[in-house]
Amino acid sequence: MELRSFSEVTAAYDVIFFDSYGVLKNSGGVLKGVPDLLLRLTQAKKDLYVITNDASKAPERMAQSFSHPVEGELIPASQIISSGLLAADFLAAQVAAKKPNGRAAYLGKPSSAYYVESAGLEAIPLAEWNDSEDPDAIVLLDDEGFDWFRDINHALNIIRRSLSPVVIGNADLLYPTKDGFALAVGSLANMLQPIAQKTFYRFGKPDAMMFVYALQAMRSARPGTKNHKVLMVGDTLHTDILGARMAGLDTVLVLSGNTLAAQAELQIQSTGIVPTYVCPDILS
Amino acid sequence: MELRSFSEVTAAYDVIFFDSYGVLKNSGGVLKGVPDLLLRLTQAKKDLYVITNDASKAPERMAQSFSHPVEGELIPASQIISSGLLAADFLAAQVAAKKPNGRAAYLGKPSSAYYVESAGLEAIPLAEWNDSEDPDAIVLLDDEGFDWFRDINHALNIIRRSLSPVVIGNADLLYPTKDGFALAVGSLANMLQPIAQKTFYRFGKPDAMMFVYALQAMRSARPGTKNHKVLMVGDTLHTDILGARMAGLDTVLVLSGNTLAAQAELQIQSTGIVPTYVCPDILS
Amino acid sequence: MELRSFSEVTAAYDVIFFDSYGVLKNSGGVLKGVPDLLLRLTQAKKDLYVITNDASKAPERMAQSFSHPVEGELIPASQIISSGLLAADFLAAQVAAKKPNGRAAYLGKPSSAYYVESAGLEAIPLAEWNDSEDPDAIVLLDDEGFDWFRDINHALNIIRRSLSPVVIGNADLLYPTKDGFALAVGSLANMLQPIAQKTFYRFGKPDAMMFVYALQAMRSARPGTKNHKVLMVGDTLHTDILGARMAGLDTVLVLSGNTLAAQAELQIQSTGIVPTYVCPDILS
Amino acid sequence: MELRSFSEVTAAYDVIFFDSYGVLKNSGGVLKGVPDLLLRLTQAKKDLYVITNDASKAPERMAQSFSHPVEGELIPASQIISSGLLAADFLAAQVAAKKPNGRAAYLGKPSSAYYVESAGLEAIPLAEWNDSEDPDAIVLLDDEGFDWFRDINHALNIIRRSLSPVVIGNADLLYPTKDGFALAVGSLANMLQPIAQKTFYRFGKPDAMMFVYALQAMRSARPGTKNHKVLMVGDTLHTDILGARMAGLDTVLVLSGNTLAAQAELQIQSTGIVPTYVCPDILS
Repeated sequence: MELRSFSEVTAAYDVIFFDSYGVLKNSGGVLKGVPDLLLRLTQAKKDLYVITNDASKAPERMAQSFSHPVEGELIPASQIISSGLLAADFLAAQVAAKKPNGRAAYLGKPSSAYYVESAGLEAIPLAEWNDSEDPDAIVLLDDEGFDWFRDINHALNIIRRSLSPVVIGNADLLYPTKDGFALAVGSLANMLQPIAQKTFYRFGKPDAMMFVYALQAMRSARPGTKNHKVLMVGDTLHTDILGARMAGLDTVLVLSGNTLAAQAELQIQSTGIVPTYVCPDILS
Repeated sequence: MELRSFSEVTAAYDVIFFDSYGVLKNSGGVLKGVPDLLLRLTQAKKDLYVITNDASKAPERMAQSFSHPVEGELIPASQIISSGLLAADFLAAQVAAKKPNGRAAYLGKPSSAYYVESAGLEAIPLAEWNDSEDPDAIVLLDDEGFDWFRDINHALNIIRRSLSPVVIGNADLLYPTKDGFALAVGSLANMLQPIAQKTFYRFGKPDAMMFVYALQAMRSARPGTKNHKVLMVGDTLHTDILGARMAGLDTVLVLSGNTLAAQAELQIQSTGIVPTYVCPDILS
Repeated sequence: MELRSFSEVTAAYDVIFFDSYGVLKNSGGVLKGVPDLLLRLTQAKKDLYVITNDASKAPERMAQSFSHPVEGELIPASQIISSGLLAADFLAAQVAAKKPNGRAAYLGKPSSAYYVESAGLEAIPLAEWNDSEDPDAIVLLDDEGFDWFRDINHALNIIRRSLSPVVIGNADLLYPTKDGFALAVGSLANMLQPIAQKTFYRFGKPDAMMFVYALQAMRSARPGTKNHKVLMVGDTLHTDILGARMAGLDTVLVLSGNTLAAQAELQIQSTGIVPTYVCPDILS
Repeated sequence: MELRSFSEVTAAYDVIFFDSYGVLKNSGGVLKGVPDLLLRLTQAKKDLYVITNDASKAPERMAQSFSHPVEGELIPASQIISSGLLAADFLAAQVAAKKPNGRAAYLGKPSSAYYVESAGLEAIPLAEWNDSEDPDAIVLLDDEGFDWFRDINHALNIIRRSLSPVVIGNADLLYPTKDGFALAVGSLANMLQPIAQKTFYRFGKPDAMMFVYALQAMRSARPGTKNHKVLMVGDTLHTDILGARMAGLDTVLVLSGNTLAAQAELQIQSTGIVPTYVCPDILS
């Protein structure tokens, strides 16, 4: 496994898709040096997008976190493609289109309600759902903001009796924290599904729809750009790299997040998910 | 599907194995009429055992709950075979035998610590495990008695870095409550395992060891009894009935717990787990 | 569950996506009456597409089978979106782009080699791969055309030692035959994957990419058509209906294929995959 | 990971349980030196048992293969515990006891029919089952002796329509061959089960019943022997070592079969299945 410098690798590409967590930021916030890097890439006429399994807050709020102290916003909200957006599109087409002002019960922080409301539905924390009537959708958006024991069991009982769609706004199974790892909402969904005996509607990488959605947004702005001029940068083989390969893109695995340098070679060998390049991080 | 009367079915058997929850008791406690039934069966010279996926309290405490108001204890603790006992045997042979007075971190109510302590280990609630050193075993015993978000994530990080065995004292995935269902500790284990990337040591039905263990206990008391004189009574196809069939026993499915009368026929057809008899409940 | 007439349901839509097997045809060939129906729909200015998990032959050959005896071809090859096309796109972008004239070993009938060759690779039946060198891709396209025992085991050993991508051209698990059902290539892939310990690149419904690809083709021909004017018709809940809902489309479940009339209601209840409409078949 | 000499490790034990394939023999037959080793262990008053996931031939035939050229049989058939024996016990108790002279359709070599016949049932190769009536059991015993494409699909259709039990006589997923690996009958069962939508009755390691059965046989011959005087020797972590630990036994992992020396440490770390000892092979 040959390690490459990120600045050298990017030279051949016009558009760069970044995963967020483990690439641009970590549990301590945006990595030092990242705003300057994004500024340099923008000045070099590269278009930058963020492709993230995150339904915990609106793209506008994510965009703010990548601002440059002097130059301001470097990646506009319209270039931040979150799994929450796909979930919101689903809710709009499959729920709100049939029942405007319908009501969805959700699990997640209050800021994740954005994705329910932007679909045209009323967002009610699942803990507060006490109706005999079922909600029009059950939406799992984030692992924080609720009492797991009480609310996961409550969700189970609503899901078992209801035919309303169950939407998972983030397919991730775990995420790195400063102490190690924490279970993401995709793991909660995996626990519920065999017991709930319902098929869930899951959104997020490695599903290639994330990349197709981003490629469509990119082509509106830069018509005619070929897939081989687009590079996906991620820290996780089975989401970022797998999904981007499915969509036909070249990929960079960085070793600054989920994949540790000591285990990268072995994980590539044992999964067969081979990135085009491996870089220590994006600042190299 | 022909429904049979339980009293008629039992006539041909000398030994009866009962599942506990959904058969002898429910979320409201021991079913009215059960102590009298157990007394009659005992007077008819039948040996009674309880085979339960329960590691939440000691067999002695379970035995008390089945007492007759006049006649006292009807099923002695030695005839209550819980999945916790198998977990305790494992901990004794595989942990305490190598390291007497070792320390195990556990998830569950304080009363479930019995199964760790009876193996000769010190039982420490996982929330209180703050050592840099790893525990000698991690033991998941019950779904209550701890903060799910904090302690399941804490367990994940201990399990990922440790080579100590992870023991699941109850393989059940869910259990009925007065409001519907709740996730049992087996579901928590299923969520953790693919992320923890360790193989767990799971105990409980449908594993046939539960039945082999009970048959051994039964034969010490009643040597020479053949398997075909033993009847297992349970409310769940994929634990009670599957496991008992694996062990070569005849079975009764009762419709007083997990399996609803309206769905019994369909579930039997769709799983292929066919009980010898179906009865509405044990009081019929 | 209210049964609707297909002709009445289609009135509100401009574009109709059809699954092939179980909808337009069965093991006896194209259903009697289907060519006339397709002709009427075309005359009513509806655009027709076929969305099929089939990598056994080229779209041109599929198009021929839907021809009208008098009017000729009713659905042009360019409107037949097969899972094989997505596999071919992947092979072109991820294999042939890096290594023109690379060689892929495939499992399937000779006619399925089309999808390897159209990607710019040489297609070699896996049974004939005897090189010490590994193929540039291993491609599973169909369940027929090879000796299962010999060639599946041969595939296993090539996959275990190689880092070349393993591509599954059809995600289906089974298909109806005149005698019952047969295992499709997706089932062979599911058997191999845990043993091969590689992640496979799978294409086909329910992956929403099939639908996104079809919607892009449709919009080139009919710009500005909204998703709510598109109707997907399929016989299988967990591929056709699930995938189309993920892509935001309305759906019809027909009872002429995988889903039997007697079980439709139950399967909808137990999976939570709810179609917009249910019709006996497309000829009603 | 410290490598130990097998002869030194065995000193502390009275009874030795051996896995067969990868320990005593490989694809070339019984390993050179093994008969002499077994003779020495017998002379040292150790009791020897074979615990094998193998339902391809009768224990008597297996016993012959371990004979010493001069001294004759070293491990009597009664000390060879195969997964086929447990399957036969199940068939006897759950099928033949209700319907003497019942008929079972089986997949496997003709020699594997032994396990059906010894249960008191007529064994009919599945390929020859053409009755409208269903067999009394469907039994998967071996991966050889039949046409995979024709007979696996035939089995699928019988299983889907029947309520007769489906019995898997060998839980192994793969086995080493001289060219690499081959899929074992457990993999065929895993492919069929989700499509057949029936629960199968599976026998073999890692299920602890294999070990409990062997311990019962051992205690009839050598009453009072404690578990800590029994040593299990195997080449596979997730069958031999996991199952024996579940049963409370000490274990040796040997590196002469499924587990390669270069990967042993990593596999132990990544599964958490830790053997008591690791030896290069049993001849060291």
